[in-house]
Amino acid sequence: MDNPPAMSERLERQIRFLVEIDRLKAIQRRSLLIDGRRRENSAEHSWHIAVMALVLAEYAEAPVDLCRVLKMLLVHDIVEIDAGDTYAYDPSGKVDQAEREAAAAERIFGLLPADQAAELQALWQEFDAGETAEAKFAHAVDRLMPLLHNFHTEGESWQAHGVDQGQVEQRVSAIAAGSRRLWEYADALVRRAVEAGYLQAVPGNADQTHP
Amino acid sequence: MDNPPAMSERLERQIRFLVEIDRLKAIQRRSLLIDGRRRENSAEHSWHIAVMALVLAEYAEAPVDLCRVLKMLLVHDIVEIDAGDTYAYDPSGKVDQAEREAAAAERIFGLLPADQAAELQALWQEFDAGETAEAKFAHAVDRLMPLLHNFHTEGESWQAHGVDQGQVEQRVSAIAAGSRRLWEYADALVRRAVEAGYLQAVPGNADQTHP
Ligand SMILES: [Ca+2]
Repeated sequence: MDNPPAMSERLERQIRFLVEIDRLKAIQRRSLLIDGRRRENSAEHSWHIAVMALVLAEYAEAPVDLCRVLKMLLVHDIVEIDAGDTYAYDPSGKVDQAEREAAAAERIFGLLPADQAAELQALWQEFDAGETAEAKFAHAVDRLMPLLHNFHTEGESWQAHGVDQGQVEQRVSAIAAGSRRLWEYADALVRRAVEAGYLQAVPGNADQTHP
Repeated sequence: MDNPPAMSERLERQIRFLVEIDRLKAIQRRSLLIDGRRRENSAEHSWHIAVMALVLAEYAEAPVDLCRVLKMLLVHDIVEIDAGDTYAYDPSGKVDQAEREAAAAERIFGLLPADQAAELQALWQEFDAGETAEAKFAHAVDRLMPLLHNFHTEGESWQAHGVDQGQVEQRVSAIAAGSRRLWEYADALVRRAVEAGYLQAVPGNADQTHP
């Protein structure tokens, strides 16, 4: 190799990170694939929501830098390699989720050269904080996608975990901050899911859903 | 719903496309996951190479629009839903690959509204043609990644398909057009794979590998 050693060490660190994150393909989510054949993993989910952002960017509530949204979605679940996937409807899993994920981000992004570790940490923190227009839109697609999976598998994962309409509406309501239009779509889909018997109705909670 | 029907139809088409491409998660590649546990699917592979492009963009031979590279990598394998994954070292699979993939692009991207169908078709064609700086760099990461998988699984898929050093060097040489630095890395890795006994040596072909 005719390259300066410093250059080589930088590339070796980058490759080491890329090899390490292959493990995201072994992190299972609660949702089934749309054909119902197996549970989804977090790597293929990250791909799917990145394409979703690309296709649905026109509905973002505020103008977004799509490139930033894509980067955020590509890296947002990498912490699950150490911290695991925390199910949206599992309060017990959320108790120490923030600490576990922060430690995971430190270790995994820390495999990279310092400048890139800082860049990817910042993207992950921006997603996590959910305050920028890009982070809000990224959250919107991240929440809309599981709804599509649940609807098309006739609510399999909702039923398996005893999730009801009130819980789903609560979770889906966060889509509105990133895209009112996509929230309206999601809200209508939740109602169709209840009508179809995929999701247990909780009529009393209906008012909470309007942000 | 308080939206004009045309808007709704547009969104329905976009959602239909997003539901359809879930099937990319069922398309198996020849390569194993880096932990060797199972074969990789094309959706998680697309995620992995998108992150690779994000991390290794500094090595692109010519300056690239990273956003365009990411979009290209996110959509480049979607045609495999209809056309299947054509193994890099299978000449028979390549005979009608172009026709099968063109028909697949027509059908699958055609699920989208016309403007987006044209946009994603153009991205896929740009990748396929491999002529722009972005397409060349996208090809470079798409060819580097399987090398990492093969190296870290001790050449399992090379051996299973009787692939030798000359074939791998031929394939890897295309990385140079997108990144001379990454090609040097890949070339060194091929030699290490031969030394480690993961890949069958073909000493006579060594000269062909220098582009
Ligand atoms: Ca997610």
